[in-house]
Amino acid sequence: MSVNMKNLISMMGILLFVIGLCALPSLVTAVIYREVAAAISFVVLIALCLLIGLAIMKLFPPARIRVRARDGFLIVALCWLIASFISALPMVITGAIPRFVDAFFEMCSGYSTTGASILSDIEALPKSILFWRSFSHWLGGMGIIVFATAIIPSIGVEGMMIASRETPGPTLDKMTPHFSDTSRRLYLLYIIFTVVLAILLMFGGMSLYDALIHSFGTVGTGGFSNYNNSVAHFASPYIYWVLTIFMILCGTNFNLFFVMIRRPRRAFQDEEYRAYMGIIIAFTVMIAIDLLAAGGYHDPFRSLTDSAFQVASVITTTGFATTNFDVWPTFAKMLLFLLMMLGASSSSTGGGPKIVRILVSIKLIRRGISLKIHPRQVTTLKLNRGQITQEIATNIANFMFLYFATIFVGSLLIAVNGFDLVTTVSAVVTCVGNVGPGFNLVGPTMNFSQFSDFSKIVLSFLMIAGRLELFTVFMLFSPYYWNSNKA
Amino acid sequence: MSVNMKNLISMMGILLFVIGLCALPSLVTAVIYREVAAAISFVVLIALCLLIGLAIMKLFPPARIRVRARDGFLIVALCWLIASFISALPMVITGAIPRFVDAFFEMCSGYSTTGASILSDIEALPKSILFWRSFSHWLGGMGIIVFATAIIPSIGVEGMMIASRETPGPTLDKMTPHFSDTSRRLYLLYIIFTVVLAILLMFGGMSLYDALIHSFGTVGTGGFSNYNNSVAHFASPYIYWVLTIFMILCGTNFNLFFVMIRRPRRAFQDEEYRAYMGIIIAFTVMIAIDLLAAGGYHDPFRSLTDSAFQVASVITTTGFATTNFDVWPTFAKMLLFLLMMLGASSSSTGGGPKIVRILVSIKLIRRGISLKIHPRQVTTLKLNRGQITQEIATNIANFMFLYFATIFVGSLLIAVNGFDLVTTVSAVVTCVGNVGPGFNLVGPTMNFSQFSDFSKIVLSFLMIAGRLELFTVFMLFSPYYWNSNKA
Repeated sequence: MSVNMKNLISMMGILLFVIGLCALPSLVTAVIYREVAAAISFVVLIALCLLIGLAIMKLFPPARIRVRARDGFLIVALCWLIASFISALPMVITGAIPRFVDAFFEMCSGYSTTGASILSDIEALPKSILFWRSFSHWLGGMGIIVFATAIIPSIGVEGMMIASRETPGPTLDKMTPHFSDTSRRLYLLYIIFTVVLAILLMFGGMSLYDALIHSFGTVGTGGFSNYNNSVAHFASPYIYWVLTIFMILCGTNFNLFFVMIRRPRRAFQDEEYRAYMGIIIAFTVMIAIDLLAAGGYHDPFRSLTDSAFQVASVITTTGFATTNFDVWPTFAKMLLFLLMMLGASSSSTGGGPKIVRILVSIKLIRRGISLKIHPRQVTTLKLNRGQITQEIATNIANFMFLYFATIFVGSLLIAVNGFDLVTTVSAVVTCVGNVGPGFNLVGPTMNFSQFSDFSKIVLSFLMIAGRLELFTVFMLFSPYYWNSNKA
Repeated sequence: MSVNMKNLISMMGILLFVIGLCALPSLVTAVIYREVAAAISFVVLIALCLLIGLAIMKLFPPARIRVRARDGFLIVALCWLIASFISALPMVITGAIPRFVDAFFEMCSGYSTTGASILSDIEALPKSILFWRSFSHWLGGMGIIVFATAIIPSIGVEGMMIASRETPGPTLDKMTPHFSDTSRRLYLLYIIFTVVLAILLMFGGMSLYDALIHSFGTVGTGGFSNYNNSVAHFASPYIYWVLTIFMILCGTNFNLFFVMIRRPRRAFQDEEYRAYMGIIIAFTVMIAIDLLAAGGYHDPFRSLTDSAFQVASVITTTGFATTNFDVWPTFAKMLLFLLMMLGASSSSTGGGPKIVRILVSIKLIRRGISLKIHPRQVTTLKLNRGQITQEIATNIANFMFLYFATIFVGSLLIAVNGFDLVTTVSAVVTCVGNVGPGFNLVGPTMNFSQFSDFSKIVLSFLMIAGRLELFTVFMLFSPYYWNSNKA
């Protein structure tokens, strides 16, 4: 096999080194809360990662990395799997999550910003372990390799090229010619959001620790909480609305915030942004009315608060909950189920197929209808006044087909558990879309512990595949990928 | 509006006249079984249809029909809706189905060859009414307008052009240059299948009446039975297997039977046929094993019989049942659910997206993956050694998008009933795909009576839209359609 093994090993070295550094805040947390076992487990993890990482970096200096385009896919996919694998260690060592497959699932869910959990009693875990679990959302939202290249700039432009595989959504606009410059700005914004949100949450009465946990979960659109009742624990409309607004912000195309500064009008005319906000408002109103009419709600403000929070949480693929939406009326649940299959905006931290792909799909349907009316007519598809080339349209159509195929095959593999159809399908949709909770046995008050080990591994894999926009991972199953590497 | 009203009215005249003729066998049945009320209702229907039909044909002679391509869509969609509307009369007049919306649903289900029913006790209905209900499958399977043009040849080539909108599946091959010649052969085969199957069923102990009912339901891939337990009523492996084989035959591309005579090898090399048979065999084996392992079956032959029957029934979108598959294990149900979304072969009498579209979709996914590996590579998609042009690929992608969009919007409209998610989604999938039974409240032992009138109308509409391959009907909702008619 001709995949450049040196590159691969070198990148793994960097990855381990960075994970070692990233575990330091969790070690500090363990010391602050005097959690001895957890502290030891983090020391073990950090020592292991730094030593192996440094040794590899010495033998295969990262400055020499030269990566062919298609080797990038393998490197990215492996990085994410290995990161989840090694990061599961503290959970197993402390016995917080005794079984390795469970800990692996939990960390895949963390890095992929899914937020699905196998924990029945979250509050029983050491605080530092929960911090580590939530910190993975923050790393995953940004992109593990992007983070690594930010810390070790010597990887340079080619590392960035690999990292672009981590950016969610199709790249449609040419607003950002210099990737490295733009990405630096984007991650600055990411950090600002995290800090501002944490401060706002502390104003609402949260401790620094709680504020950080929920800030990581929101900004990374992950959804891990340190409370069994998720955000409902706080029972504060202020906190609900602050989180709702920040979830919506973090599901927005991050590039738009910079356009907003220079040309605010153009930002608000962005078709994806308008569709995104339009869907949020329309779905919130529909669910709020349905909750008042049939869902047992009597207070319109409470109905609107819960509706807006859940809509924002699901469309941005965060997965926090202020109520058990699994007991909502079918119409409201159907709307949430549709939102699970939409996802957030391109170049946001959210998962799912992304609004822009749905938008283009709808445009394709409309063109299909006009082509049936006037078969010889030439129609160009447009998005934000620019033309959607045939290449982009084909790419998006391919993605949507792969997305549905993934859900079908995934559901079949999960069906072996013998749980009902809604549990089965919603577990797969919620994992592939990086949402978190589903319906029935995987509803907001339930968890994924009852699945078989095989199912947990399949779902872990689907979460990573979904986070890396499917192609990056599924490509590695194509014989063509390995054959063309040989050539 | 510039849709040629004369053509429209003329076509409606022909349609009414033909429906009048088609009701004659049902009148004969009523006389044989001495069902007075039913006989009167058929006399009323026949008199009404023949008189109005002849009057219209006198005023607007059909020979002069000249139809623009896009007027055809409106004519076909209206024909099917009006046929269902007028054919519901005998059921309402006799009081067999007292409410009109129920009778309309039943006839939409009949003509669209869906087989979904609102009847709780089928056996309580007059035999002639049940004959009429099943005869609509036979007419619908062939295509109402195709049938009309066969009876009244003066409509000629242009009527045939309209009729081509009724042929299921995308037209990919050029095997059939002369549509009218081919269609004549196809309908001869259709009649032969009907007669041979009826005879074989009588060998199995069915009465002529029962044999005809189940022959109409099988050859038209409809699924209406005259027994509450559907085909399970007969409890005969011989009948089960005869029906299984004929369902599979009628879900095959009818053109292939002629290729088989001349070049048998080429027929068996047809990619769609191989995929179709491969899916049937693979799904049958998987379900049979699952039934033995987890479904409470102990006899391998019974397991295989039920599995093969249900697989054939769902993939061909017939909808007969020999057992209540709603109580099967989740894995088996998931497989059936996938089959509901596949459909039969192109140019068969079955519904759904059709195997060929799924096949092309999979080829698109595979090309998508190789394009990610080698972005500048030029790949041509092939089917049966011929090239799939960009136009055909786009058409198929458009159809698949519209199909999923239909299921999403349809599910939302049906969700207002407040039934569970599985009932809601499977009701829509089974109606759009013209299958018949779904899961939970619309499972094989249940029926559609508990839905609201609004839902019944939506589902009726979806059945017709599904039968006419979606675009024909949904186009009429496009403002562009009506604007371009003005121009």
